[in-house]
Amino acid sequence: MRYELYYWPGIEGRGEFVRLALEEAGAAYVDVARSAKSGGVDALMKYLDDGKIARPPFAPPFLKAGKLLIGQTANILFYLGQRERLAPRDEAGRLWANQLQLTIADFVDETHDTHHPIAGGLYYEDQKPEAKRRAAGFRKERMPKFLGYFDDVLERSTGNYLAGRKLTYPDLSLFLLVDGLRYAFPKAMRRLEKKIPRVIALRDRVAARPNITAYLTSDRWIGFNQQGIFRHYEELDG
Amino acid sequence: MRYELYYWPGIEGRGEFVRLALEEAGAAYVDVARSAKSGGVDALMKYLDDGKIARPPFAPPFLKAGKLLIGQTANILFYLGQRERLAPRDEAGRLWANQLQLTIADFVDETHDTHHPIAGGLYYEDQKPEAKRRAAGFRKERMPKFLGYFDDVLERSTGNYLAGRKLTYPDLSLFLLVDGLRYAFPKAMRRLEKKIPRVIALRDRVAARPNITAYLTSDRWIGFNQQGIFRHYEELDG
Repeated sequence: MRYELYYWPGIEGRGEFVRLALEEAGAAYVDVARSAKSGGVDALMKYLDDGKIARPPFAPPFLKAGKLLIGQTANILFYLGQRERLAPRDEAGRLWANQLQLTIADFVDETHDTHHPIAGGLYYEDQKPEAKRRAAGFRKERMPKFLGYFDDVLERSTGNYLAGRKLTYPDLSLFLLVDGLRYAFPKAMRRLEKKIPRVIALRDRVAARPNITAYLTSDRWIGFNQQGIFRHYEELDG
Repeated sequence: MRYELYYWPGIEGRGEFVRLALEEAGAAYVDVARSAKSGGVDALMKYLDDGKIARPPFAPPFLKAGKLLIGQTANILFYLGQRERLAPRDEAGRLWANQLQLTIADFVDETHDTHHPIAGGLYYEDQKPEAKRRAAGFRKERMPKFLGYFDDVLERSTGNYLAGRKLTYPDLSLFLLVDGLRYAFPKAMRRLEKKIPRVIALRDRVAARPNITAYLTSDRWIGFNQQGIFRHYEELDG
């Protein structure tokens, strides 16, 4: 089966968490909105505007997998995890992977809101003082708390990965989170990294996987920029 | 099996989404931190502080179900949904229920941030001007968008509930969302409700269910207050 991923072109955004899973699995997929051949952004908008879709997604990303149309990043990953062997096989393990992914999602939301604390529909320039205040608390309280938690999970793990001896999809997402934070908050991360050695080692382990390395050097990889979730504004980095 | 729910006492918070599922299912459970007999808040803190727990939760709520310790609201509901027959039985339906729940969770996060746009660790009084700005966008853009989406989902449903002819756990959560928004933003909701008749009808349908009615008139029900997610500040209601 060839998956169809629907996400806004031009940014990694939440779509990147799905891309990493598809790439690690070596799955066949088309990144619909980024390809004129597959219909571009119009094909994505069709799913948001078409009143006939029985189970409409609220927002991208969403994934078409045969007849299934699956929305919400963590939900897509839950599905792909089972199907593409990127999740534990037992129920307890699957719930644990989902729990970790939802905690990552909470952290990603908070990261986004450092540059958009007032409204996602306004420009950063229209909420700069508020962003500065929010980012200060984020750097001081939230980054150490979340990243410290994942370091702790790795310490307690029975293997080198979050959920044990095998890589699962939250490992891929944590990799993206570390690189995104390095891009957005280089100074804060430099200070923090020595306190989270297990998270950094996991990040390197994921980056070294053949399918991930190949992806990051391909033209499928978008990279970070100033329109995504992870943005670098010097004044927000303390 | 008797479930153990761990959540902060004194507020409904995210724990309430789990309580509603347990109550509708008629499940046996103890609300640990609210009962001295079961150990109170100390029993909850033990799970957050004990370095020996193999799969530690990041934050309440979490649910103990036999040997399982499950964190993250949507993850707990995913588990309870299957086990307590509050979810569709087929894979596509289960993914759809999870997708709806995650969209509700996003909306709940945004609702919380109307009174805490800068930092959860600061008092409301320390972020009032920012809250006023954030709440204005929330009332004008986000409330109509999210609630309109759920009205649309109900219109497209094959039955009276979000996922078809049977009640599933996202219906219970949407009920709580409507009542919470009525408490927090009574004026904004009064204007909006005529545009979302299906959501309001669903809310009434859930409220009329025998187990829910019994719960809402029991002393297990906490009710809304000014420490929870849904808070009423007149200046935020426009």
